Parts: sequence; C-alpha cells; structure tokens
Amino acid sequence: MRTSPLLEQLMDALRCLPGVGPKSAQRMAFSLLQRNRQGGLQLADVLGKAMTEIGHCRDCRTFTEEDVCAICDNPRRLENGQICVVESPADIMAVEATGQFSGRYFVLMGHLSPLDGIGPSDIGLDVLEYRLQNEPIAELILATNPTVEGEATAHFIAELCQAYQVPATRIAHGVPVGGELELVDGTTLSHSLAGRQKLY
Amino acid sequence: MRTSPLLEQLMDALRCLPGVGPKSAQRMAFSLLQRNRQGGLQLADVLGKAMTEIGHCRDCRTFTEEDVCAICDNPRRLENGQICVVESPADIMAVEATGQFSGRYFVLMGHLSPLDGIGPSDIGLDVLEYRLQNEPIAELILATNPTVEGEATAHFIAELCQAYQVPATRIAHGVPVGGELELVDGTTLSHSLAGRQKLY
Repeated sequence: MRTSPLLEQLMDALRCLPGVGPKSAQRMAFSLLQRNRQGGLQLADVLGKAMTEIGHCRDCRTFTEEDVCAICDNPRRLENGQICVVESPADIMAVEATGQFSGRYFVLMGHLSPLDGIGPSDIGLDVLEYRLQNEPIAELILATNPTVEGEATAHFIAELCQAYQVPATRIAHGVPVGGELELVDGTTLSHSLAGRQKLY
Repeated sequence: MRTSPLLEQLMDALRCLPGVGPKSAQRMAFSLLQRNRQGGLQLADVLGKAMTEIGHCRDCRTFTEEDVCAICDNPRRLENGQICVVESPADIMAVEATGQFSGRYFVLMGHLSPLDGIGPSDIGLDVLEYRLQNEPIAELILATNPTVEGEATAHFIAELCQAYQVPATRIAHGVPVGGELELVDGTTLSHSLAGRQKLY
C-alpha cells in the first residue's frame, strides 16, 4: 500500500535522469522532501525554464538560450580563424578546460551513422558547408571521438574541406599522458607509433 | 568561456540531489536536453508540485499530500491494532515490501539525539503519546534502526508504553538470512545468541 501517489509520481519522474534507478530515485525524493525543499523547488523552476528556453546556437549548434552563443558572439574568438569540430557540447567544455584553444567551435550533436539513418544533414553538415563556403576559416580542427563513427565523420568532413580548400587537421591519437605503455591497447599504440614526431 | 548561463544554473541546481556531483550533473543536463525534454518538463512539474503539496500525515507523520495517508485511512489496517514505529518513510516501504505486516505505522522522521538537540517532541513522541492514551492499541512494534540512537529511541518509547500499559515489542536482531556466521560481527552474533528461540 502506498501512502502518497504524488510521491510515487516524483520517484517515477526522477528516473528520467540517466543512471537513476528505483532505489536512487527513492533516496533523492526523500532527501529533497526531508532536507531540501527549497533546493527542490529551485531545481523544478530552473529545469522547466531550461527545457523550454535552451535551443541551439545559430552558428555552432551548441546549447544556448540566446540566438548565438557567447563563444560565437565573442570577436576575440574569431581572430585566429580556427574552428574545432566536436560531437557534443560536453566536448566543448572538455576542450575549454584545457585552456589551449581560443577559436570557435562547431557541434555536430552526434556522428554519421548510416545504419541508424543519421546522415550529413542530421549532424548539421549543411550548416558547416555553408560556413566553409562563406567564412574565412584558417583551419578546421576535427576533434570527433576516436571511434569508428567518429573517424568516419572526420574523414567525411575532411573531404568537404578539400572541396572548399580549407585546411583540416585531426587531433592526435596516442598513448595517454601518465599511462603505462604495457597497459595501452594495440590499436592506440599503432596510432602512437605512426604519429611519432621528430625530436631533433 | 561558458555558452549558456541557464545550462550552468541547471547543472548547479541538479547538485541538490544526493550523490550528484559536477560530472553527473553535467551528464544529466545534457541527457535531458538532447534526448528527453518531455521527461525533463514532466520532472520539473511533478517536482514543483511535490515540494509544495506533500506534507505529513496527521496520524502517522509519513509523507502524504492528503490530511491522513492511505494506510491510516484504511479501516482494514486498524483491525489488528498493531502500530509499527519506524524512523523514516523509506522504512515503511521496506516493511510493506515484506508483506508481513498489516497494521499501521508511526514515523519518527529521525531518532532521539540529545547532542544534536533532537528531543522527544522533535520526533513526534507527543503525537505518539496522545495516541497511546486515546487509541485501543494492541501492540507497538519498535522497528527503529539497530544503531545506538535507534536503540535509545526504542527504549524511550518502550517506557512510554509501560506508562500507558500498551504492550511494546522490538524487532529481532541477529544473523542476516543468507549470511555466513564467520563473517558476522561480534555484537550481532551476541544479540543472535541472546535472542535464541526454542525449537521443540
């Protein structure tokens, strides 16, 4: 017997969050009700607003509630003419965290996957093609994931760049810094050898 | 540089959930935005409603949006005259899941803890005392947690029962079913021996 239908609904609704099962949902619901109703109310408010207001940047397709995101809108980001192509907005955060990149981004929101019916226009390559054609781009850095689909997507975009005479580069694959050579898989090590750089 | 202040706010707000750190909050926010906006909107709606509407049952103090919860309101739950005293609403769910108990509950919403300034009236013992005085209660089953505070709380309530001549029982402590004797801690094993039951 259940004491509160609304509480049941809350536990069910919490399970839309990734990685939250029945036990975690119960713990979350009780924790908010017992200790943090204010936080719960604020989450409800921000969540509702975010789900309705956040759309995609007109230029780079990342998440933003504005028409154009803060990075694309920043004139200093335009200076070096670099555009870094990534698969998801989370990848932007990862690249930004390195502090090594001061250009703009282009977010595919996925990767090419013909078997799932995801073609070039589904990942915004029509928008990217328009930009390649009309913007002075100095370099397109392909930072898609080092997976089969990510590689295929990178190659597809590289051919697009060739057609419009825009230099394209791919991020390096190799042994992760701090890792141990004997624990690295064979494919990564092959890439690491093939991509070796001259020291002197 | 951040592309969306609202997205930042959402990630911050998600961290009010227990067990959710910066990485999980980011994953949750992106997952909802990319794949399940409908679920996110529903969560926002239910969460807001739950935080404002869910209060405590007048009789047993568990969470409910009604004046009296469904269990206390059920006349069949009144028949055997048993009341099970637990520390939290989650404990009700655990006891209900056994299917072994058909009486009513009383939820303390905590335990006695003089060092933290939590006294009898903070865990609703004034309400319980009123019920002991005015209701025909056949048995009060003390199912507080087997911790120092839980035990102290159980003893305190047992004395209250004695004052009003209401039979009180404590749930058994002992070796968990399916566990191995050699792995059980000494205190549990002592309880298990002291609480041994006659077989024939």
